[in-house]
Amino acid sequence: MKLKFTLGLLCLFLQFQAFAQIPALERVEPSFWWVGMNNPKLQLVVHGNGIASREVKLNYAGVTLSQVHKVENPNYLFLDLLISAEARPGKFNIEFQGKNQKKLSYTYELKDRDKSSNRIMGVTNKDFMYLIMPDRFANGDKRNDVIKGMQETALNRDSMYYRHGGDLQGIINHLDYLEDLGVTALWLNPVLENDQPKTSYHGYANTENYKIDPRFGDNALYKKLVDESHARGIKVIKDLVHNHFGSQHWILKDMPSKDWVHNWPEFTKSSFKDQVLFDPYASEADKKIMTDGWFDGHMPDLNQKNEFVKNYLTQSHIWWIEYAGLDGFRLDTYAYNDPEFMAEWAKFIKAEYPRFTFFAETWVHGIPNQAFFTQGNTINRGFDTELPGVTDFQTLWGINETLNGKFGWNEGVNKLYTTIASDFMYQDATRNVVFLDNHDLSRFYSVIGEDFDDFKSGIAWLLTTRGIPQLYYGTEILMKNFSNPDGLVREDFKGGWSGDKENKFTAQGRTPKENEAFNFVRTLANYRKNNEVLQTGKLMQYVPENGIYVYFRYNADKTVMIVMNTNDTISDLSLKRFNERLDGFNSALNVITSQKINSLLTINIPAKTTLVLELQK
Amino acid sequence: MKLKFTLGLLCLFLQFQAFAQIPALERVEPSFWWVGMNNPKLQLVVHGNGIASREVKLNYAGVTLSQVHKVENPNYLFLDLLISAEARPGKFNIEFQGKNQKKLSYTYELKDRDKSSNRIMGVTNKDFMYLIMPDRFANGDKRNDVIKGMQETALNRDSMYYRHGGDLQGIINHLDYLEDLGVTALWLNPVLENDQPKTSYHGYANTENYKIDPRFGDNALYKKLVDESHARGIKVIKDLVHNHFGSQHWILKDMPSKDWVHNWPEFTKSSFKDQVLFDPYASEADKKIMTDGWFDGHMPDLNQKNEFVKNYLTQSHIWWIEYAGLDGFRLDTYAYNDPEFMAEWAKFIKAEYPRFTFFAETWVHGIPNQAFFTQGNTINRGFDTELPGVTDFQTLWGINETLNGKFGWNEGVNKLYTTIASDFMYQDATRNVVFLDNHDLSRFYSVIGEDFDDFKSGIAWLLTTRGIPQLYYGTEILMKNFSNPDGLVREDFKGGWSGDKENKFTAQGRTPKENEAFNFVRTLANYRKNNEVLQTGKLMQYVPENGIYVYFRYNADKTVMIVMNTNDTISDLSLKRFNERLDGFNSALNVITSQKINSLLTINIPAKTTLVLELQK
Repeated sequence: MKLKFTLGLLCLFLQFQAFAQIPALERVEPSFWWVGMNNPKLQLVVHGNGIASREVKLNYAGVTLSQVHKVENPNYLFLDLLISAEARPGKFNIEFQGKNQKKLSYTYELKDRDKSSNRIMGVTNKDFMYLIMPDRFANGDKRNDVIKGMQETALNRDSMYYRHGGDLQGIINHLDYLEDLGVTALWLNPVLENDQPKTSYHGYANTENYKIDPRFGDNALYKKLVDESHARGIKVIKDLVHNHFGSQHWILKDMPSKDWVHNWPEFTKSSFKDQVLFDPYASEADKKIMTDGWFDGHMPDLNQKNEFVKNYLTQSHIWWIEYAGLDGFRLDTYAYNDPEFMAEWAKFIKAEYPRFTFFAETWVHGIPNQAFFTQGNTINRGFDTELPGVTDFQTLWGINETLNGKFGWNEGVNKLYTTIASDFMYQDATRNVVFLDNHDLSRFYSVIGEDFDDFKSGIAWLLTTRGIPQLYYGTEILMKNFSNPDGLVREDFKGGWSGDKENKFTAQGRTPKENEAFNFVRTLANYRKNNEVLQTGKLMQYVPENGIYVYFRYNADKTVMIVMNTNDTISDLSLKRFNERLDGFNSALNVITSQKINSLLTINIPAKTTLVLELQK
Repeated sequence: MKLKFTLGLLCLFLQFQAFAQIPALERVEPSFWWVGMNNPKLQLVVHGNGIASREVKLNYAGVTLSQVHKVENPNYLFLDLLISAEARPGKFNIEFQGKNQKKLSYTYELKDRDKSSNRIMGVTNKDFMYLIMPDRFANGDKRNDVIKGMQETALNRDSMYYRHGGDLQGIINHLDYLEDLGVTALWLNPVLENDQPKTSYHGYANTENYKIDPRFGDNALYKKLVDESHARGIKVIKDLVHNHFGSQHWILKDMPSKDWVHNWPEFTKSSFKDQVLFDPYASEADKKIMTDGWFDGHMPDLNQKNEFVKNYLTQSHIWWIEYAGLDGFRLDTYAYNDPEFMAEWAKFIKAEYPRFTFFAETWVHGIPNQAFFTQGNTINRGFDTELPGVTDFQTLWGINETLNGKFGWNEGVNKLYTTIASDFMYQDATRNVVFLDNHDLSRFYSVIGEDFDDFKSGIAWLLTTRGIPQLYYGTEILMKNFSNPDGLVREDFKGGWSGDKENKFTAQGRTPKENEAFNFVRTLANYRKNNEVLQTGKLMQYVPENGIYVYFRYNADKTVMIVMNTNDTISDLSLKRFNERLDGFNSALNVITSQKINSLLTINIPAKTTLVLELQK
């Protein structure tokens, strides 16, 4: 996530000095847990006025209070619990007793795990992912548009910087639309509470770790969204921010210790230079600025060497998987985190949930830069990140150059071809997420100069290349605009608000061109959904010649040939070169148009067109 | 090497049918060998009319004829000899006896090895390498300008495509010039016989493997060049072509077997697409064209899966090291070779000569593309190329962008910075050869628009960055021009021919600007030669800011700070950021100007200038 930096640094250190008046037992997090987890350890954060002065006791079969940690701030206790395999679901009291004080008690619950097979499934190249910015997709519940007592109170659909009222119910209301489109996985920008005074809509400055923002709904509704999605064969991905909290996060308002965040003599932003992470020649000073510098003035950089910070983050992530039955995580601003912590975190998540998957935002320029972050001893790095996949910005630069550039030795589609040829750099490139745009980037249709042929070529590539394809909401209906200067790439999906003049969720509400775009996506996405060959089939690509790029997806059952003509002119292509894959086939079916091609000697490709052809015997 | 392709494919296959009339014992190669080699095996190629019909005998203590191979062509025998550690230097007869034929005999010599320590030294980052195209540097012996009986007979200094008469004696005559310049290693474009009818001057189409082209001199003179160079502290690198021979190579005129070269139904050029070598998705058809396609119509592609081809190549390379006392090889057109053979070859050379070094031409675009070729398990490749170093085209693209581009997130000097940061991709990037131009590329001074400030910045970078710096002849005197269309980058060094109006080998013959350029190179090259810190010192580089790139070379004795201002404006730079390396130093000496800088708080850098500063206490 990159956004304009707001001015001014909020004075956390002053806040740390002047503790807010809080109750004697303000909260325990996580508020409940489960029996039967692989990892028997649980660390509870207890926050209350002067709580550190109290003795802690609990008594429950199979549960041991193994350690009580006190920290700088007397308002915190960190309780280490060991939950044995014998512990049964149930409730018990945790008691806090101080000298000459009234005893405090918290009733803790250990729940039974839901081990249904249709939850926590993992998102893979079998899926087609749809990214939604929840505030901007659909408003399903007007009652939560403005929540009293929260810091940002204005609703203003005319500004990109204010909240618009979109919410979880709005998404639930349109799951049928997504299912029809062929979507099988949903990635929402963060929906945790962001009780920040400004631009809270984007969700990347969370102020709670265990609570959905009330303007989006509540935890139960979030779980319902997951269940309703699963019922339609749609998986759900949660967007996590490890790197920072919002400055108004409850725990930062009364920090357990000064080293909960990275402190600087004066406000210091990250350099955002991923190079220092892998550069054998980097200075310690540059590394510190990159990793410990703040993403923004209102996003304090968490100290991921602090064991309590690490536990707090990781447990909240485990909690959400278990609670909601999530299928995957997207990891925001991955490069700015502590690399050791992120590797440790990844191992931890995988150990608890072997089927669960995650991928990280690596908004970098260069194949080594991107591959550096991925798991496996594929490069000379000295440690394993344990990160299965990344957002594949390199193929994005490749497809943009393909559609906007001119064919040359390294230019045009040769850039895309070379990028994909470089997959030897990854342990498994099919775990990378391929995309044409997202909430931070100019919309695809604008990037390609609103060229409809290029649009279809891009979509055809997205849904036929290797990896996990991701579509940004509204791209299927030709939503446009540039990310700078005004963030107009986060406009509302028309029809998501009652009273909208147009409704792009229905064929009737769309223009003929929008319907053509929608149907193109829908046809190919559903073909992909119903044909494993485009999901897990092998890839074979040929050296592009004369501006034409040909590749195949194939498995034992089917072979699909993709022919991308990047030229401005119609081309006749002799297919002899491709005998290795054409052998045994005599004709082909155009997947989009259902037209039959009766000869595989030569085919005719219109200008700026990508054909998706299922080969037939 | 890339050159314009000549038209037409010479008819090797017809030649194979119609054997030339040759003597009964035309030649034995290698014509002599040594005792005491690590590898006891030697394979002799015997060529003679119907030689295969004869019995072979030899009798020499410690030498066994272990196998006699016959091949398709009856004019060849391949003799496997085993030379034991007990064999003494001396001569013996190899006898060829046929039924009812006069006995033939070849007197074979096994020589003693010269184990002097000042030969076969290896070229490393301690060196500064100078590349010479021998036909274009200096003509030291007019008698060899035209050799009767050779196919190309014209001498024409007005054309880039004809021979100009430069030779080995010309180079020997100017070794003092090179020593004075600070050069410590010489790379000559190939000097083996190229008895081709056209453009034989460049040397990349050899027609003999054991014979210096008579127009350059002879084998003894080549050895003398190496000895004379070594006497001046200058090492010598031989340029090898594994991929192809000239079509007029003696062995191709009467091929041992049809599979000595790669045969195609019709002439097929290589695609020159390195991507297919590493692309996990490449087709077999594309791989075959890349590796087995011909470099050019007059350069048949050798079949490096043929064991006799492999032995013939490798032994000739070993022979030259041992004969001349060479220090290194440069491997031409590396990417077009059979990767397995090249790995096997590299292991073989290293086993025989542990100090000897070699580096390969990898004219590719992309860090993964280049790193793929280098040795060590640094990337996910599945085999080890055993190749220590490459010609670092990636830093070349980087320095060009630095000097010609505009500073941006990925542009200008950030491209160079990122390229060097990506050194984690190599087992040891200091074995890569860094350069500003070569015989195939437009000359550096022209590439930067003849900007003299940029010229000095480029030279300063070349001689202070990591790796083995290489200068192309004449770059030190501002020689210019573009490689296309007319190969004018291979012009004569003025003063190398008697009667030249100008002599750029002397200060008097150079213009003031040429002298400034020459002295800039000379001063820095000699500083580098005398200060290990610029050879083997560690590198630390900082994230470029505001168009200024700062890096350090340092060891226990010295620290050199390099400050490159790529802006068009003078800049004041606060040095606080660099405390990690400045600690303990108070002043600095400008290595080029000898001026003292008395404070390390802020320095002033003129526009487009690179300062090389030795820090002082």
